[in-house]
Amino acid sequence: MEQGIRIYGELALIAGSGNPQLAQEVSAELGLPLHKREITIFANENIFIQLGETVRSKDVFIIQPTCSPVDHNIMELMIMIDTVKRASAGRITAVMPFFSYARSDKKDMPRVPITSRLIADMLAAAGADRFMTVDLHAGQIQGFFSFPGDELSAFPLLSRHFINKGITDLVVVAADLGFAKKARNFAQTLNVPVAFIEKRRDGGNTECLSVIGNVQGKNALIVDDEVDRGTTIAGAADILRANGAKDVYCCFVHATFSDDAVERMAAANFAEIVCTNSEPIPPSKRLPNMKVISLGPWMARVIDAVHRGRSVGNTLRDYEPNYS
Amino acid sequence: MEQGIRIYGELALIAGSGNPQLAQEVSAELGLPLHKREITIFANENIFIQLGETVRSKDVFIIQPTCSPVDHNIMELMIMIDTVKRASAGRITAVMPFFSYARSDKKDMPRVPITSRLIADMLAAAGADRFMTVDLHAGQIQGFFSFPGDELSAFPLLSRHFINKGITDLVVVAADLGFAKKARNFAQTLNVPVAFIEKRRDGGNTECLSVIGNVQGKNALIVDDEVDRGTTIAGAADILRANGAKDVYCCFVHATFSDDAVERMAAANFAEIVCTNSEPIPPSKRLPNMKVISLGPWMARVIDAVHRGRSVGNTLRDYEPNYS
Amino acid sequence: MEQGIRIYGELALIAGSGNPQLAQEVSAELGLPLHKREITIFANENIFIQLGETVRSKDVFIIQPTCSPVDHNIMELMIMIDTVKRASAGRITAVMPFFSYARSDKKDMPRVPITSRLIADMLAAAGADRFMTVDLHAGQIQGFFSFPGDELSAFPLLSRHFINKGITDLVVVAADLGFAKKARNFAQTLNVPVAFIEKRRDGGNTECLSVIGNVQGKNALIVDDEVDRGTTIAGAADILRANGAKDVYCCFVHATFSDDAVERMAAANFAEIVCTNSEPIPPSKRLPNMKVISLGPWMARVIDAVHRGRSVGNTLRDYEPNYS
Amino acid sequence: MEQGIRIYGELALIAGSGNPQLAQEVSAELGLPLHKREITIFANENIFIQLGETVRSKDVFIIQPTCSPVDHNIMELMIMIDTVKRASAGRITAVMPFFSYARSDKKDMPRVPITSRLIADMLAAAGADRFMTVDLHAGQIQGFFSFPGDELSAFPLLSRHFINKGITDLVVVAADLGFAKKARNFAQTLNVPVAFIEKRRDGGNTECLSVIGNVQGKNALIVDDEVDRGTTIAGAADILRANGAKDVYCCFVHATFSDDAVERMAAANFAEIVCTNSEPIPPSKRLPNMKVISLGPWMARVIDAVHRGRSVGNTLRDYEPNYS
Amino acid sequence: MEQGIRIYGELALIAGSGNPQLAQEVSAELGLPLHKREITIFANENIFIQLGETVRSKDVFIIQPTCSPVDHNIMELMIMIDTVKRASAGRITAVMPFFSYARSDKKDMPRVPITSRLIADMLAAAGADRFMTVDLHAGQIQGFFSFPGDELSAFPLLSRHFINKGITDLVVVAADLGFAKKARNFAQTLNVPVAFIEKRRDGGNTECLSVIGNVQGKNALIVDDEVDRGTTIAGAADILRANGAKDVYCCFVHATFSDDAVERMAAANFAEIVCTNSEPIPPSKRLPNMKVISLGPWMARVIDAVHRGRSVGNTLRDYEPNYS
Amino acid sequence: MEQGIRIYGELALIAGSGNPQLAQEVSAELGLPLHKREITIFANENIFIQLGETVRSKDVFIIQPTCSPVDHNIMELMIMIDTVKRASAGRITAVMPFFSYARSDKKDMPRVPITSRLIADMLAAAGADRFMTVDLHAGQIQGFFSFPGDELSAFPLLSRHFINKGITDLVVVAADLGFAKKARNFAQTLNVPVAFIEKRRDGGNTECLSVIGNVQGKNALIVDDEVDRGTTIAGAADILRANGAKDVYCCFVHATFSDDAVERMAAANFAEIVCTNSEPIPPSKRLPNMKVISLGPWMARVIDAVHRGRSVGNTLRDYEPNYS
Repeated sequence: MEQGIRIYGELALIAGSGNPQLAQEVSAELGLPLHKREITIFANENIFIQLGETVRSKDVFIIQPTCSPVDHNIMELMIMIDTVKRASAGRITAVMPFFSYARSDKKDMPRVPITSRLIADMLAAAGADRFMTVDLHAGQIQGFFSFPGDELSAFPLLSRHFINKGITDLVVVAADLGFAKKARNFAQTLNVPVAFIEKRRDGGNTECLSVIGNVQGKNALIVDDEVDRGTTIAGAADILRANGAKDVYCCFVHATFSDDAVERMAAANFAEIVCTNSEPIPPSKRLPNMKVISLGPWMARVIDAVHRGRSVGNTLRDYEPNYS
Repeated sequence: MEQGIRIYGELALIAGSGNPQLAQEVSAELGLPLHKREITIFANENIFIQLGETVRSKDVFIIQPTCSPVDHNIMELMIMIDTVKRASAGRITAVMPFFSYARSDKKDMPRVPITSRLIADMLAAAGADRFMTVDLHAGQIQGFFSFPGDELSAFPLLSRHFINKGITDLVVVAADLGFAKKARNFAQTLNVPVAFIEKRRDGGNTECLSVIGNVQGKNALIVDDEVDRGTTIAGAADILRANGAKDVYCCFVHATFSDDAVERMAAANFAEIVCTNSEPIPPSKRLPNMKVISLGPWMARVIDAVHRGRSVGNTLRDYEPNYS
Repeated sequence: MEQGIRIYGELALIAGSGNPQLAQEVSAELGLPLHKREITIFANENIFIQLGETVRSKDVFIIQPTCSPVDHNIMELMIMIDTVKRASAGRITAVMPFFSYARSDKKDMPRVPITSRLIADMLAAAGADRFMTVDLHAGQIQGFFSFPGDELSAFPLLSRHFINKGITDLVVVAADLGFAKKARNFAQTLNVPVAFIEKRRDGGNTECLSVIGNVQGKNALIVDDEVDRGTTIAGAADILRANGAKDVYCCFVHATFSDDAVERMAAANFAEIVCTNSEPIPPSKRLPNMKVISLGPWMARVIDAVHRGRSVGNTLRDYEPNYS
Repeated sequence: MEQGIRIYGELALIAGSGNPQLAQEVSAELGLPLHKREITIFANENIFIQLGETVRSKDVFIIQPTCSPVDHNIMELMIMIDTVKRASAGRITAVMPFFSYARSDKKDMPRVPITSRLIADMLAAAGADRFMTVDLHAGQIQGFFSFPGDELSAFPLLSRHFINKGITDLVVVAADLGFAKKARNFAQTLNVPVAFIEKRRDGGNTECLSVIGNVQGKNALIVDDEVDRGTTIAGAADILRANGAKDVYCCFVHATFSDDAVERMAAANFAEIVCTNSEPIPPSKRLPNMKVISLGPWMARVIDAVHRGRSVGNTLRDYEPNYS
Repeated sequence: MEQGIRIYGELALIAGSGNPQLAQEVSAELGLPLHKREITIFANENIFIQLGETVRSKDVFIIQPTCSPVDHNIMELMIMIDTVKRASAGRITAVMPFFSYARSDKKDMPRVPITSRLIADMLAAAGADRFMTVDLHAGQIQGFFSFPGDELSAFPLLSRHFINKGITDLVVVAADLGFAKKARNFAQTLNVPVAFIEKRRDGGNTECLSVIGNVQGKNALIVDDEVDRGTTIAGAADILRANGAKDVYCCFVHATFSDDAVERMAAANFAEIVCTNSEPIPPSKRLPNMKVISLGPWMARVIDAVHRGRSVGNTLRDYEPNYS
Repeated sequence: MEQGIRIYGELALIAGSGNPQLAQEVSAELGLPLHKREITIFANENIFIQLGETVRSKDVFIIQPTCSPVDHNIMELMIMIDTVKRASAGRITAVMPFFSYARSDKKDMPRVPITSRLIADMLAAAGADRFMTVDLHAGQIQGFFSFPGDELSAFPLLSRHFINKGITDLVVVAADLGFAKKARNFAQTLNVPVAFIEKRRDGGNTECLSVIGNVQGKNALIVDDEVDRGTTIAGAADILRANGAKDVYCCFVHATFSDDAVERMAAANFAEIVCTNSEPIPPSKRLPNMKVISLGPWMARVIDAVHRGRSVGNTLRDYEPNYS
């Protein structure tokens, strides 16, 4: 086994309140209890954090996706980093399996913010030394951070699922043209063709969808990074069927499921919905045809590799999920 | 009139959603419409801001107390600053008449955060050039900012109210020993004695209040910077009466009124409650015996002075509120 | 006319050696001579710059695309910014109509750099206060800058050209799937359909191109942000014709034309090649079927607007190129 | 014993010239000789420092209270940090048992400095990684530092002294209202009541003192963080006796004793004066009724804990001073 | 007259206590009274500053050479900058006609500081926007500042004096080899040859001086940047005479005159001593054969040029001192 | 042997393309293979770097003199640092045996850059933690770096060569007055006298050289830090012979040899030319009378000492080159 280098103190895992179950999975895989910490919300809404044991010199990983409630979870993460920094940790990694505000990544209209960069800067101001995240909406967001970090991709976990499934006559479909290149890469992994949905605003306010590429008589697998309100992906399923597609599957990493997403996803009648638990998915959002791949064990291996100074690439290449 | 220096572009007032009425008062006093801006909250809770007109080179004041909903208002302020910065404003002042998280200003327990400093650093990271605030919980918080700013004090507005009232046999009371020195200063302005409430935890969890100083047969005026849940000030009123005080008045700057504060304040049966609108006070929180002093016109004068490069001290000294 | 605000000193235009003709065009449009500066390259290759007149307090725009020779032009820009900063300029804008290293904008392989972010940080270290650029390879690169700036888009100039031309049966084609969304936007402006070229590596090292979407019997207009070696766009032209396209046009903003690009572009037999002079295009690279749209007058208006504190959006909206 | 983590190099103790005896005590307790360093003051008053042995990668603690001569000791500390940083130390902790300029911690008048924050920033500029200090005048000064550190409190050492003494009918007195809350906490530890001295300026320039709370027939213990000129505490002793107090004791952490403090303290006729050696106390300042508690062994334990990555809280809780 | 640009507010001159007479000269030349400020030194040695009038938006020049008492004057300058920054000045220039610690500008021994860089960083931390200084010990110290500034040279004032004098058979002599190049430049201005004094340590601790170059039968003019203890320059005079020189003159910019410098300079029997008042020269240090050239009017012109955005080079070229 | 402290991960040596042979020498001496890295230059001149193995937590030394091609090597170094930083190295040291742009170290003319400081800041922006360099043109350049580092001097290697040689009647000569002090130090090591060449511009553009000091009948050894075009040193040889010198030797650290330097050096007819390989010296530049002292083994020892936390001074003192 590769010889690593551990130059920071003991590993410490601290869970924010964003996705406690995922943090628990990481803890279980590493056989390392979550660090004691108490999070209080006062009547005046102020978040207060106290660590129950020392983190001096430790190599601290704070597990906190910035999922709903978004502003709260961001502030909690900032305050937790400040707490850990002032408690003299050796190194602080902000582990954000879901990174919110990622769509605000450029000024494509006049006088708008670039909130992703803002949050990266706020993390630096708070005292984070590293970041870890999963499938950012745009890879360039890595460059918003002034400090190093690791963006992991869960797409190999998704593609492995469908390779195992062995669906014939498959075509991968990007529901949004901004995802075209990543969909092509995904299709290449599965060794199947790719098609695209084009959305165009028609004069007034009505949106017209059309399919570019051949889906007639094929099984379609829509792939995306995130499902938010579910309108895009549900609309894509409809237009694919209208263009002759047979079964329609979908897979994506981040199940934000805001608004009436669950109802829309249910109505879209997918053959299967595959996603991860980068954001918590409560029972009420778990549809019968939904498979949720847990990221916990996989992230645990990466955290361990980072802690020990081992190659993350090698760690991920060797990772064999246990599909029971 | 003092000759000022205007070295930035035109004044622009932008209102966050924290206290739109206060922003409106400032705007009215200055005869300058609030800047056009659109704040959208998407289904995924992401805040999005677009300015409706240019702020290039302008001297922008963003009016946003970080009152309830606290985390939301903080994030909105950060994003608004980023928006204004990337839209090439000449100077950006974050006007926070109420500055939340102010009680988290030191580590008086192990492994806790100093959130006030964190927020000051986040404001710098976002791009603020200056701050303006009113009666910080501790004056030292000024020093948490790496950039210049003005902390205004509304206590002269409060004391003027009671001087005009001319209550006899008055004693000023600090409901918390941390406010002892400021209470003494307030008492000195009114030229009356001062007394203190001591809160002590008695063995178990019960708190014992006692009065230090003489209140017997006197009218008492409790003074504080903020009323949050109202338990401290209501308890103070009770113990003062138990120690022989006659009428009990209270005044404070920030009416946070979280939890059941309104009910507690009503039950405490004050002769009069005097506060300011640094935080919005909806009709449901306005008790019949409450007088709310509006900060709008007063802040407008200060904003104008800062914009024109005139002395804020002189501006405040000359300010004559119009008590109708 | 909109009332602007000039809060910096006089406008000063300084030309680097990257694209002197473009700088000359800007100067001519504004009726403002280029600032005197002497650039010396010593025998030891060290670049030395001396300004021939004062820039104290001035609003300086340094016009320097980071085109070939790339490393030299980057270093010259850095040194020029340092010179101008230490000469006490009031504000420094790095005007980079072409921003090199833009494809190094994320870590999509292990252990690679994000050079675009590095250069943004180097510009900050040198002392730039603002940037101005044209059609970055990815809009997110805006967010790599910690300071404000303006990314302009020359695509409206390109689309206007083809709207005026009035080609029938047109389909817009993205030669690369990473450009799919922008191609769709471009197609929408022309109110025509869009198609895509997919490049896929076939087992060994041979690349297979295929067309996704319908081009049969249509005139095709390939659109991209940059032509570097020309292999992608030339290959696209071939596969389009093989799939039944009639005339093939192409347009793009940045004519890098490295390697044998000129020969490839000539051999590709385009009906017309339309691009801009963001990078200098010497006579040897000007093919007979090439139309170069000059950016000078257009950038001059934007520089003037930024200098005067006027809206760049309004300035661009009102811009009417004079097509002789 | 708790398992710590040592992630920096060997511990190195360097003494500035501020309090060499205290540094010596720390060194003796840890069995670690003070690092060789030569401090020269040239004829032109320039301070020059040379380290006599390597500090590469070491965990360096520079022991330098910023006591008299204040400006000299601050500059010496800055220069020593720069020396140690440029000599490639692994980590640098500025140990300042007394932190001067602490009363300049807010703008409570127009156009005054916040010198405490300035010094925190100067320490960061010089290259300090951490601070350690004892009983800051205001806890918020912790938040002036952008880097982590530990503020220790010597009050438990003072209170333990008086608990052991077992004085009956004791009342704790704050000589200044700004110390009211801390005095209450101190009184609570001793389980006795608290009273306050109010100082008020009477029309002209004469100060009037009065006692708030009951001291009649009691033994009084005045507690404060620092005795500077001694006028406040001596005045307090007088007014306490005038109000019927019996024996008057005093205790405080920092014995600055500027001006004629020694004479004033002698004349005030205290039953006992208890303080620490955070600042050096030469024989000429040691009154017969003064007990000086040495901080050396106590600080040594904390330095050792920080070095080994152990909890400082636990270390302090377990600390048993040896009162011979 | 050159058209300047004034982009900051009104000019404000603030005098530190380092060289009040020089500040007065600048004030008189510009017809602008020194800004009201009160500098208090408390019994505990803490420096406290309060400005007596507003500096909001103003263009502030703080005149404070860091001469004796060195540490005090440095700290006073830092605190004054902090005061002015927090009082919202528009721009702050630290005017340091003498810059102490300049000899600590490199590590030429192991484990020593680079104090000049440290002070430049401290000035930045305090909030200075610009520096102005006169004849730094090494020009490279300019590069220690991260912000712009102007180093002026008073050597033209010194050389003009000797040109006017018209001494025949003159040779310029550098008393230290580190000044060789500047002495050559000075000699070239006077159109005379140059010679050097070499100091070499001879086995033990005795220093041997020797003259390199020809001085026999010539009048010698020793030139240096600073006279500190006077041993070097007095020794040079002796060895020059021993080598056959006739009259020996000396000139230098900074008259530090520490230790017994006055006695040494008197004993060295110079034909004339010429220097400037960059540091204050009290009557007790003014020898009968000493001419002190006042820098006040000259610096006033430069300050005015910087304030108005005019070329400093042109301003200095046109400067005609009035030698009465 | 001294007990060092290794607080970073394993040592990793990465070679840039500036001086691969020197990197190879270091690698060989340490018995540690150079780290796998691939440097690609695309057709558009963009440099791309990928590391072939992990550097997580490692102690990385990047060996890259910024010699010709200068701008390319600087950019390559910056990009390599960014790559290593984003790959999560533990510590990054930029090893630049030759540091270009060192002559641009001050503003000795109006409106010129200080490029050395700029490059130091760019290195910090890229993410370097330390620097290592050899004989900077001016020692003050150390102070341009905000982070620690080691400037080594190769002059002891050069002087040892001439001490071993035992040339009689030797005089050391500085070819430039800016090198006078260092030449004196060098002469002192050899225990011989020193002389200087003065260059003066004579009215028009012709330069006149003259010798200051006695060289008649002596063997002369010209010493300098760098030979660039070779005109200065060749001119010095001529004027020395014209003044009666016998054999003329020369030695210097950096053999830049730009322009026609080789021809000039050949024509100058030196008895011996001694230099180092801080910059690569291809066979075409190796004259028959030239001795090149290899820096590799010597730098290897220093890198090892820094890595292990041992004193560099002791390491260098003990270094015994093996002159075969």
